[in-house]
Amino acid sequence: MTRRHLIILAITALFSGALQVNAQETEKNTISAIYQNALTSYDAYNNLKELCTNAGGRLVGSSASERAILILKTQVGKLNPDTSYLQNYTTPSWRCKSKSQAIVYYGSKKKSLNVVNLGLSVSTPNTGIKKQILEVHSLIELDSLGSNVVKDKIVFFNRAMDNSKINTFEAYSGAVDQRSRGAAKASQYGASGVIVRSMSTERYDFSHTGVSRYKEGLKEIPNISISTNDADKLSRISKENTSVKVWIKSSTETIDSARTANLIAEIKGSQHPEKIIVIGAHIDSWFNSPGAHDDGAGCEQMIDVFRIFKQLNIKPINTIRLVLFMDEEMYQSGSKVYADFVEKEKKEHIVSIESDAGGLLPLGFGIDAGDSVTNAIKKLTEQLFDYGIYKTGRGYGGVDIEPLKQFGIPLIGLSTNSQRYFEYHHSANDTVENVSRREMQLGTAAIASLVYLIDRNGIN
Amino acid sequence: MTRRHLIILAITALFSGALQVNAQETEKNTISAIYQNALTSYDAYNNLKELCTNAGGRLVGSSASERAILILKTQVGKLNPDTSYLQNYTTPSWRCKSKSQAIVYYGSKKKSLNVVNLGLSVSTPNTGIKKQILEVHSLIELDSLGSNVVKDKIVFFNRAMDNSKINTFEAYSGAVDQRSRGAAKASQYGASGVIVRSMSTERYDFSHTGVSRYKEGLKEIPNISISTNDADKLSRISKENTSVKVWIKSSTETIDSARTANLIAEIKGSQHPEKIIVIGAHIDSWFNSPGAHDDGAGCEQMIDVFRIFKQLNIKPINTIRLVLFMDEEMYQSGSKVYADFVEKEKKEHIVSIESDAGGLLPLGFGIDAGDSVTNAIKKLTEQLFDYGIYKTGRGYGGVDIEPLKQFGIPLIGLSTNSQRYFEYHHSANDTVENVSRREMQLGTAAIASLVYLIDRNGIN
Repeated sequence: MTRRHLIILAITALFSGALQVNAQETEKNTISAIYQNALTSYDAYNNLKELCTNAGGRLVGSSASERAILILKTQVGKLNPDTSYLQNYTTPSWRCKSKSQAIVYYGSKKKSLNVVNLGLSVSTPNTGIKKQILEVHSLIELDSLGSNVVKDKIVFFNRAMDNSKINTFEAYSGAVDQRSRGAAKASQYGASGVIVRSMSTERYDFSHTGVSRYKEGLKEIPNISISTNDADKLSRISKENTSVKVWIKSSTETIDSARTANLIAEIKGSQHPEKIIVIGAHIDSWFNSPGAHDDGAGCEQMIDVFRIFKQLNIKPINTIRLVLFMDEEMYQSGSKVYADFVEKEKKEHIVSIESDAGGLLPLGFGIDAGDSVTNAIKKLTEQLFDYGIYKTGRGYGGVDIEPLKQFGIPLIGLSTNSQRYFEYHHSANDTVENVSRREMQLGTAAIASLVYLIDRNGIN
Repeated sequence: MTRRHLIILAITALFSGALQVNAQETEKNTISAIYQNALTSYDAYNNLKELCTNAGGRLVGSSASERAILILKTQVGKLNPDTSYLQNYTTPSWRCKSKSQAIVYYGSKKKSLNVVNLGLSVSTPNTGIKKQILEVHSLIELDSLGSNVVKDKIVFFNRAMDNSKINTFEAYSGAVDQRSRGAAKASQYGASGVIVRSMSTERYDFSHTGVSRYKEGLKEIPNISISTNDADKLSRISKENTSVKVWIKSSTETIDSARTANLIAEIKGSQHPEKIIVIGAHIDSWFNSPGAHDDGAGCEQMIDVFRIFKQLNIKPINTIRLVLFMDEEMYQSGSKVYADFVEKEKKEHIVSIESDAGGLLPLGFGIDAGDSVTNAIKKLTEQLFDYGIYKTGRGYGGVDIEPLKQFGIPLIGLSTNSQRYFEYHHSANDTVENVSRREMQLGTAAIASLVYLIDRNGIN
């Protein structure tokens, strides 16, 4: 090697070193700018207020869900994305025709109870059902009792969420079988109806809904959810009295076919418009809930990522595609429609990111991908440590992006502080007032920063 | 060394190794039990409800503060501590005689404004004060304008908290001089009164109070706080109109001498009853606020540490002393009384721990002590990482324990997620409904665990 060669090599090395330092500095400054922009903006929070106020209870197929689609489309449209369109489709649906009711009769007394219909539950007859109550704490307990005991009763599942768990989602997983499979199991033994203790960590009067599924070939029996306070009361009453009956009434119907849509919008990539980074959340919420945390906040965070990219003039190399999915709560029809579209479209998806853990303090990202991708993303998020992102690792992506896994697309879910989540989830308590703007916006900034880092650095 | 010696040495080493493993295992299990107990208990939250419902607005010297002392004493008494007593003393105080009012007059219109008295502010005359408004954004700006411009005006300090800060306490520090020193500065230039933008990160209708101090030798002028929404409105109105006047009215009084107390209780140390670990919080809250986060939650967390120690039968080696201080908000009289007591008592204080950052998600501890103690405490808290305690390091202890620093006592403050804090702080919005039981109890568990670890391991 000549001296000249050596000098050139040294200069090249210095120069590329300087470039690298510069690139790191640029990244650091951009992330700082993203956080500052997110925290000082009230747009996403005001958008959330608009969505929840004007389109609360936006279950797929409802008129509220139609309003929600229009509101979100207008909010996205104001940001002048390169494309924005509705992915229209039809799906079966379900709705409540009126609020469910429950009254407990004991001795000469009666007391009305705070209840709410469970999703997909069938109606009672018009006059309701009045039956003896049978309190149990698990599906297995029901098995052990059998038809002799269960037949013609209203089964009352009263196992509380385990508050000793640090992560409340674990406590939810440990109790939710009562809600999702309790009616099918009770029907198997000839029960007339089911009441389920609400999935909440707190003792109060809010009732929480959620999906309850039947089993083919078994009679579908009505299934409602009772507030934790009233579950405790009902349990006490049935222990203290000999003849306790409960009357329940609910009126629901299935809808054969409802027209609905996913909302899609893009900022096209400057170098690789054909490569996609999906950022997603779901539009729909339960009929009884404003759906602020679940998942209005997710939708508005993702829309706000577009606003931040635009305002800070961050031009992505790859295409950032916003997908707001319909119908996460019941049939996941929107996510299936999108997955079919991806299969036909045959465009490379770099990653898919979902926010569906509430507009709560973000703590990290859950990654559902292979080792090397997981490690690469973990490495990128180390730059967000000073912003409170410290818990990134293997985890769950999200219900809406789950079908994309079959195509080998890495899934990423925003992980948040779960402590408050089950004070709100699927209840009338899931209001904008219970969303902290700054916490929601830290989530927005974390997602925008991760999108930016993945777009610039890739994940390989 | 003989062979026998070697064998004895080896056995001793094995045995002490086993003991150490056992001790570690015991610690791990005890911490797990503490968290499980805290998270499954509703006692502290129910106590907080009782305190805030029956003794909201418990400023020192008020009848609510007297009720608060009794409520807390009863709550502590139920846990059968080894000692429990009131540290009675007298102090000057201050109170609002009625709610302050403000109306802006512009053109032929007027609009009433959401305001609240600032702590220690003097009254207006009975008929109020009606003056031209002068909007400024800093004390320095006032200096630059001087008497000619300022004289006979109502000065309107309207610099917002800097929302781009990640830690909201930093944003608070950067804006609070307007509230604490604005009136003294304005009086220096002959102003008639002062209106200060509320110290909040959010745009809404709550007004936030807090202490405002005068300067000896300068005329004391009335000083009130305006909600952020109305600060924005007032600013807009004064820009859009030529003749804008504001009328303000407030009625307050100082109290020469009020009888009050700190509340002290102890679990005596089994081996070193003369060595003290202080756990503290403050009883008082501003007149306009239920004081749930500030600092009812702190009081109830510390009381709950006693409950947990009792229920889990953890017998401390050293004495755990609960000190609930009076009057953090205005004169810090309770903390001075306690510091004087410590000086006379001459008992060794191992550490002093305060919780005064709200019943919010705990993230770590701030330590105000020398290097070796700080490192020892950091090391101990590593065991709490899986419980979300990851940010322990040098930091602030707390206003109430601050005077103990002069005796070389290490100070420790619970650090929490600060994002929501200035939605509540010193306002009517600081309600129990805005406290998450689980978040508060994670704080309780973190403190109980740290007390346990320090008690067992020391900090040297």
